[in-house]
Amino acid sequence: MRSEILKILLEGNNYVSGQKMCEELHVSRTAVWKAMNQLKDEGYEIESVTNKGYRIISCPDLVTQEAIEGKIKTRVLGKRVHYQMEVGSTNTVAKQFAEEKNSHGLLVTADLQNSGKGRRGRSWVSPKESGIWMTLILKPELDPRNASMLTLVAALAVAKGICEVTKLDAKIKWPNDIVVNKKKVCGILTEMNAELDFINYVVVGIGINVNVTKFPDEIKEIASSLYLESGNRINRSELICKALEYFEEYYETFLNAGNLSSLLEEYNTFLINKGKMVKILGETQLVGTAKGINDKGELIVTVGDEDITVMSGEVSVRGLYEYV
Amino acid sequence: MRSEILKILLEGNNYVSGQKMCEELHVSRTAVWKAMNQLKDEGYEIESVTNKGYRIISCPDLVTQEAIEGKIKTRVLGKRVHYQMEVGSTNTVAKQFAEEKNSHGLLVTADLQNSGKGRRGRSWVSPKESGIWMTLILKPELDPRNASMLTLVAALAVAKGICEVTKLDAKIKWPNDIVVNKKKVCGILTEMNAELDFINYVVVGIGINVNVTKFPDEIKEIASSLYLESGNRINRSELICKALEYFEEYYETFLNAGNLSSLLEEYNTFLINKGKMVKILGETQLVGTAKGINDKGELIVTVGDEDITVMSGEVSVRGLYEYV
Repeated sequence: MRSEILKILLEGNNYVSGQKMCEELHVSRTAVWKAMNQLKDEGYEIESVTNKGYRIISCPDLVTQEAIEGKIKTRVLGKRVHYQMEVGSTNTVAKQFAEEKNSHGLLVTADLQNSGKGRRGRSWVSPKESGIWMTLILKPELDPRNASMLTLVAALAVAKGICEVTKLDAKIKWPNDIVVNKKKVCGILTEMNAELDFINYVVVGIGINVNVTKFPDEIKEIASSLYLESGNRINRSELICKALEYFEEYYETFLNAGNLSSLLEEYNTFLINKGKMVKILGETQLVGTAKGINDKGELIVTVGDEDITVMSGEVSVRGLYEYV
Repeated sequence: MRSEILKILLEGNNYVSGQKMCEELHVSRTAVWKAMNQLKDEGYEIESVTNKGYRIISCPDLVTQEAIEGKIKTRVLGKRVHYQMEVGSTNTVAKQFAEEKNSHGLLVTADLQNSGKGRRGRSWVSPKESGIWMTLILKPELDPRNASMLTLVAALAVAKGICEVTKLDAKIKWPNDIVVNKKKVCGILTEMNAELDFINYVVVGIGINVNVTKFPDEIKEIASSLYLESGNRINRSELICKALEYFEEYYETFLNAGNLSSLLEEYNTFLINKGKMVKILGETQLVGTAKGINDKGELIVTVGDEDITVMSGEVSVRGLYEYV
């Protein structure tokens, strides 16, 4: 009952009369009234006005299935949500679902990751109910050699979502981090399962430090949260929806082009590395100035008089940090 | 006891005296004699000569852990074997082991696959005890964009192993099949799990129709077995060992070069497509003549006056079949 009533309230943009809900759900006024109290107990702010009915003023900060499915404005991505209060890592859960047919677009969310993952098996701190720990399953018709570009598509969407929801000036630290005031607030871990020339699935894991209030001493100089940088608590489901709405738009643009050509210009405006020094790893270590990315998602670096392109593995992340 | 004695016999290139085995294993002559009988029951041919001892003349056609570990002459690949009599698919089992540390080089073998896999989810017929159904786990330090070349490395090793063990003229049908007398005898299914710029693991699944005696009507014109083509039953573990020995050699050559440059010439001598027509899929369908592969593993096709390169997804396999 509670869920049905919540759905009606979330779908209605204005007041919904108690009478209408009784008729639609074939229940008594008392049942409606009880469900309203239950929702209020859960943290929903609900206004009731005589002769008008009920209206949701604010939702609690949840990342559950109904909190997201009820308000996301996408066609496919995130329209279905699998929520678990606690997981090892949302990428691991997502990979299990990804083995199933029809899981394209499914979003896995959690309130707590007890063994969240960063790149190359590093750990990612994911404290309870204070961040967005989510993974999106994609099954694109794409050459596996181009799959890494999806990380850049995701970064652009999340950066833009953060800017819009928080009014902060979020930037992309190529290839897979988002920073605010030079501190990391988001990391993206894309994993792929592919055959020779065929992607079985891609999972895009996105971890955003949203309302985290404190970081361990060893990382507090380089990591932060949207709350710490903006001074405001941010509604997580609102940010999830906004980021996925942008992601769907950019994802379709990317797939249509087969490369990043149409997203290049906008991406480069978000790129914090632009004009900054980067170290390029290799037999001889080179230092150059990042110019931007090309349509393959490689970083163009000016070394001396020459422009060269590098893939993420070839660039020192430490170098990037130092100069960011 | 049986396993220890088998190990001693397999390791000794010549006769091993019963006395020596008793001393080494601290057991009685009766125990050794019982183990010999057990091995004979399992199909081992064992010769015993007075004053000389015991010698293995032939092994039964097994793909078990000890059948392979006992005789493989590699440094890493296939030195550890996980055998199951029956599996769904060896790739699926291998992917589970691949999640564990230290699984690089582990070989998964089975006597029967009840849901063997071909590319893009197609099924692969894997009847009991008559083929090699195996998957090798690799964790190469390699750009994920270059992982597909491993299929070509595997194909070269298997083709060469088949030629050596069977004296048949095995050829590679680019990119992932081996043919004998224009009929498919082997398919390779490489799957990868990767991050942006980092391979977590690759599993190379190799299915070889070794002693299969009959094929369904719908595929008997295009598929065959080493037995049907040579008239001889082939020892499966011998072929596994030979193929992996070549694979290890080519794998190291490939990783050192970072591309297929050092293997190119030999690969192209095995390439059945060479000089044959292929259809190239795309907006306008092109037909050309395959020249060979380049150091990225792409097929070079002469279309009119021009050489173009194609990846596997861009070429019609049906086209290849028609012209093979």
